[in-house]
Amino acid sequence: MATARHTVRRMKAFVMNGIGEVGFTEKEQPQAGPNDAILKPTKGLVCTSDVHTVHGAIGERENLTLGHEVVGVVDEVGAEVEHVQPGDRVAVGAITPDWSSEAAQRGFPSQSNGALGGWKFANVKDGVFQERVHVNDADGNLAKIPEAVSDEEAVYITDMMTTGFAGAEHAEIPLGGTVAVFAQGPVGLMATAGAKLRGAGEIIAIESVPERQKLSKNYGADHVIDYQDDDPVEKIHEVTDDEGVDSSIEALGTSQTFEQCVQATKPGGTISNVGYHGEGEHVNLPREAWGVGMAEKTIRTTLCPGGRVRLERMLRILENDGVDPTLMTTHTFPFDQVDEAFALMENKEDGVIKPLIEFE
Amino acid sequence: MATARHTVRRMKAFVMNGIGEVGFTEKEQPQAGPNDAILKPTKGLVCTSDVHTVHGAIGERENLTLGHEVVGVVDEVGAEVEHVQPGDRVAVGAITPDWSSEAAQRGFPSQSNGALGGWKFANVKDGVFQERVHVNDADGNLAKIPEAVSDEEAVYITDMMTTGFAGAEHAEIPLGGTVAVFAQGPVGLMATAGAKLRGAGEIIAIESVPERQKLSKNYGADHVIDYQDDDPVEKIHEVTDDEGVDSSIEALGTSQTFEQCVQATKPGGTISNVGYHGEGEHVNLPREAWGVGMAEKTIRTTLCPGGRVRLERMLRILENDGVDPTLMTTHTFPFDQVDEAFALMENKEDGVIKPLIEFE
Amino acid sequence: MATARHTVRRMKAFVMNGIGEVGFTEKEQPQAGPNDAILKPTKGLVCTSDVHTVHGAIGERENLTLGHEVVGVVDEVGAEVEHVQPGDRVAVGAITPDWSSEAAQRGFPSQSNGALGGWKFANVKDGVFQERVHVNDADGNLAKIPEAVSDEEAVYITDMMTTGFAGAEHAEIPLGGTVAVFAQGPVGLMATAGAKLRGAGEIIAIESVPERQKLSKNYGADHVIDYQDDDPVEKIHEVTDDEGVDSSIEALGTSQTFEQCVQATKPGGTISNVGYHGEGEHVNLPREAWGVGMAEKTIRTTLCPGGRVRLERMLRILENDGVDPTLMTTHTFPFDQVDEAFALMENKEDGVIKPLIEFE
Amino acid sequence: MATARHTVRRMKAFVMNGIGEVGFTEKEQPQAGPNDAILKPTKGLVCTSDVHTVHGAIGERENLTLGHEVVGVVDEVGAEVEHVQPGDRVAVGAITPDWSSEAAQRGFPSQSNGALGGWKFANVKDGVFQERVHVNDADGNLAKIPEAVSDEEAVYITDMMTTGFAGAEHAEIPLGGTVAVFAQGPVGLMATAGAKLRGAGEIIAIESVPERQKLSKNYGADHVIDYQDDDPVEKIHEVTDDEGVDSSIEALGTSQTFEQCVQATKPGGTISNVGYHGEGEHVNLPREAWGVGMAEKTIRTTLCPGGRVRLERMLRILENDGVDPTLMTTHTFPFDQVDEAFALMENKEDGVIKPLIEFE
Repeated sequence: MATARHTVRRMKAFVMNGIGEVGFTEKEQPQAGPNDAILKPTKGLVCTSDVHTVHGAIGERENLTLGHEVVGVVDEVGAEVEHVQPGDRVAVGAITPDWSSEAAQRGFPSQSNGALGGWKFANVKDGVFQERVHVNDADGNLAKIPEAVSDEEAVYITDMMTTGFAGAEHAEIPLGGTVAVFAQGPVGLMATAGAKLRGAGEIIAIESVPERQKLSKNYGADHVIDYQDDDPVEKIHEVTDDEGVDSSIEALGTSQTFEQCVQATKPGGTISNVGYHGEGEHVNLPREAWGVGMAEKTIRTTLCPGGRVRLERMLRILENDGVDPTLMTTHTFPFDQVDEAFALMENKEDGVIKPLIEFE
Repeated sequence: MATARHTVRRMKAFVMNGIGEVGFTEKEQPQAGPNDAILKPTKGLVCTSDVHTVHGAIGERENLTLGHEVVGVVDEVGAEVEHVQPGDRVAVGAITPDWSSEAAQRGFPSQSNGALGGWKFANVKDGVFQERVHVNDADGNLAKIPEAVSDEEAVYITDMMTTGFAGAEHAEIPLGGTVAVFAQGPVGLMATAGAKLRGAGEIIAIESVPERQKLSKNYGADHVIDYQDDDPVEKIHEVTDDEGVDSSIEALGTSQTFEQCVQATKPGGTISNVGYHGEGEHVNLPREAWGVGMAEKTIRTTLCPGGRVRLERMLRILENDGVDPTLMTTHTFPFDQVDEAFALMENKEDGVIKPLIEFE
Repeated sequence: MATARHTVRRMKAFVMNGIGEVGFTEKEQPQAGPNDAILKPTKGLVCTSDVHTVHGAIGERENLTLGHEVVGVVDEVGAEVEHVQPGDRVAVGAITPDWSSEAAQRGFPSQSNGALGGWKFANVKDGVFQERVHVNDADGNLAKIPEAVSDEEAVYITDMMTTGFAGAEHAEIPLGGTVAVFAQGPVGLMATAGAKLRGAGEIIAIESVPERQKLSKNYGADHVIDYQDDDPVEKIHEVTDDEGVDSSIEALGTSQTFEQCVQATKPGGTISNVGYHGEGEHVNLPREAWGVGMAEKTIRTTLCPGGRVRLERMLRILENDGVDPTLMTTHTFPFDQVDEAFALMENKEDGVIKPLIEFE
Repeated sequence: MATARHTVRRMKAFVMNGIGEVGFTEKEQPQAGPNDAILKPTKGLVCTSDVHTVHGAIGERENLTLGHEVVGVVDEVGAEVEHVQPGDRVAVGAITPDWSSEAAQRGFPSQSNGALGGWKFANVKDGVFQERVHVNDADGNLAKIPEAVSDEEAVYITDMMTTGFAGAEHAEIPLGGTVAVFAQGPVGLMATAGAKLRGAGEIIAIESVPERQKLSKNYGADHVIDYQDDDPVEKIHEVTDDEGVDSSIEALGTSQTFEQCVQATKPGGTISNVGYHGEGEHVNLPREAWGVGMAEKTIRTTLCPGGRVRLERMLRILENDGVDPTLMTTHTFPFDQVDEAFALMENKEDGVIKPLIEFE
């Protein structure tokens, strides 16, 4: 019967109910408009930014499903969708741009419909920690996962890989150039891997947690500076014959590390920010290290890139064993224990890097 | 006689003698090493940054000749120089890079030998307000002035045009895009002219001095905002249908205008700084307008570009009447009254924009 | 009544009926899918490429409406369309990309769904010389025309301005650099205007038709070379002190002019092709002038850029009097005499540059 | 005694004496001008282009020393040289630009003083197969070799690595993108390694010689196409789901492979040429695959990049084990048997890839 698909079905969802409050609930399954798809999730990941959201980083939210990193199987598509069909195993970006928007046409799809406007999941619409997920512009935002790539690998492309790699790309590292990556959380680790993939000649990671230091070497760091032992800026100048680095990447989101990036980068170099800056009215640009506004240091910022083409490129790297992101999976939970994964991520206990969520 | 050129000759020079002290003195004429040239100046311009220098912006200096904007006639060249010869009418950039330096090879000649290291005149060696001027790497740093271009026109390419235009180029204005230029002093006016030359679709100038407002329209501004009447950021959003501008140019050098640039620029847009930031430990990046480090707004900075090729391009624009910089000449002084020109520039009296210095 | 919009309405159309055959016919009015709009045209322009199409350049076509340059009023929009509504006065690009396609996501929307795939009008679907025009992805492909811009001006942005300007942008002309533009038909003239808008220091136009020579000066050419009097490559080297130009633009579409572009361009310079190459198995790259494959001359090509943002930028240039394309309108015809406009364009009689079509 | 350095000293040199004639001779040692250095070579490599030169590719040469790939120890420096001193172990690029030249200031140092003008060794001055080597602009063109890098490794940066890598950089391979590399001679192999270093997601090498096929996999190729078994263009379309590759690299220098590059590359993609095209009046651009001049495929070409900074970046990659070029050393000869190395290179016998020359 033609209207069968519109029968209301219920599903389980893990939601935010006001600042600081999370829990499971039941809600109606989403339905696909003409350009949309509905996804049945298989694997997800919890992100630190989900925790920030719960703490009020983007303001109050009621009954909003959390989560933005997911892969799954297509369950339904709208009438205008051509590229995917029910049954396809797919990845969806954490950011799902409107591809005909003004910003997308200018080359900045993640900013479609305003600053950070491509970020919809668990922000302006329900996120992915529910049994069915709505995807806008399915042709533009879904990529089929090749057989050789597992769901667990693939779920890392939806945010961690694409974001960290973009941080490295925006750093404009010359082939054989030097780069410093500040902080080796999951995005910082992927920025390190991205710097390696872009052909950096020397990668300096700044990190104090031993497990993360070790992983950073695994992903390509040539030196690791423990900021608890050494001043990172001094140490970087020491390692680079007092030249500073060609490029630096901020993957923490504090004014202090941002300043250190500017100080550690040589004139004409690039500072690439991927850290989310959650506090303060200002982030400080250190006037002298910035060359009184004349040292030709470029500052770029990144929001997770989305889109089918980007996802396909990430998948190709996985397929040809360019990087193994699953080294970052420290814990695994079934969907009905996603609350525990959140608690773990919040407390940063037990050496957690990324908790994997299994939907079945 | 082979050694004749090394006979010591004396010349008049206008120097800084400690912070706040200027005056005429006599010193030995400079001599050319194998790659150098000696220039006999004909026309110069006084720059606000000379005034900053006298006030201690770059620290103490003793018996240092001031000035960095000059054109003249080649008086002598070193044995390795091939491109110019005595008698040539030439312009020399305010910035005279070492072209084989590390930074020049990376594409940032103005930063050769350290941040701002291409800036030598009246910084690390005598400036141009003396009867003979030493030019390093003459083949790389001198451009012959075509017959159709006057000395007065040409002297504007040495700093004002090349700097203001670079501010516009670094703003990455799309053809037909929108741009805001904060402050319409001589560099800001040339940034406005540069934005017009790059095909901006709509140029918004921010300025309160009536003469400068008028000149800015002359150089291409479509709107002028008087910041004493309106909040520039609000007004810019009003003019641009609340989108903000594609690009903004900071040509004043205050933390406040820099913040306004970030606020006025749309996600994915570019902020181009050409203002010299002389005060404070930090320049403020407004966290929210910067998109919490994720709105993909790029920040670039500019130091006056130098070099023969750049100067030749500027001269070509003059030759084909692309812009008339002499509209900015508000006063003229003979070289032996350059002290009066400095006093005028310092007090910003009498509607001064640029005082022209005539050497003969 | 809900189905009212699907009542079949008839309209007049000017079609191609096999190679070499054109004529008026009547067909059903198009209908809008969820993302589409229907346009009621007001002004159009005939393009040389329409003539090529009739002669078989893209193969056989039956009952295909001709024309791709048009402005009009929105008559109907699909349910998903947000940016425009019935009654809006709008321009539609000759190229109407699919904005979520693979190529668009890579930054090449005009190549969506295969080479030249954004080109739909009078190629893979009916063109614009009919009483109602179907526009795919209306949000992405329509731009509202500001009050200050007339329909006649606006219709030039749909192909001539956007294409010619893109030819100039892809030529990577340095500010103050030198550029040669081969052929001054309407696209070549707009490439000349585009070079001027990008701040070229010296523009050399190659053209032999007196009216077009004159217009090229009007649009910014500093020199005009008549290839019937002089060898263009020799003359260009003469004008540029034997250096060659920084950039050259091919706006004719012959192997010979393409070769001349390569020969006229200096090492490290850029050749930008906007000409449609309709003949031969190969276009010739002259081996020696190409530096045996090592002179670092870059060759780029352009297909008319489309999209709302691009159109809005073009409109902004018109609004602020950056260029006057209507100087190219040599003739005007009512829609029911569009066949005469075609005949004129085909025979290149009467000094024709662009024939304007008026729909009412 | 001050003039001691000008005592004439004799040295052994391996020279070209007219087309097709080579042999050892004795000539005067070169002397250093104020900006120059004299190098005592330790290791060199024979290049196929040396063989081309002997066969007349650049015309007649008399008593011209051959060779352009060398490392050694600084023997003498001119008075203006600051960066290196006698005793330093250094690499010199095959290309030694004039850094203050017009082309270098434009960003194309290898084209200084005309097309391919940075190429001096064994072209416009004596090459490196002699006991002392003259290096112009020593500060700009010499890089000190770090202790961890052997002479044999380092000599590969002077041409093979820097050229092959530049071919990959100019191919503008997106991170995770697809690339085809045509021919796996030493430059092609280094282009493959360069593509891997830039983060290509899938590398397709075209080669028929088994040893080279094997090495190409070693350097990062994911697929190898033997053009004797398959049509490379068809095979590439098969491997890429009929999309074509993002980028292709021509590393052979024939019109046929160049055409295949254009055919194998998707609309909007880039063709990067590093092959030396030695024959024919034209290289063919296939008109249809080139999209009749409108498919937005960019064509770039490369001449070996030189300069201290570039060499230092290459050395950094060696130092951090980014690539092992010595896998390409198939034979070793003492300097006084360099004639045998030439004969081997000419006949392409014995699986030769690169013959290493030892000077002591």
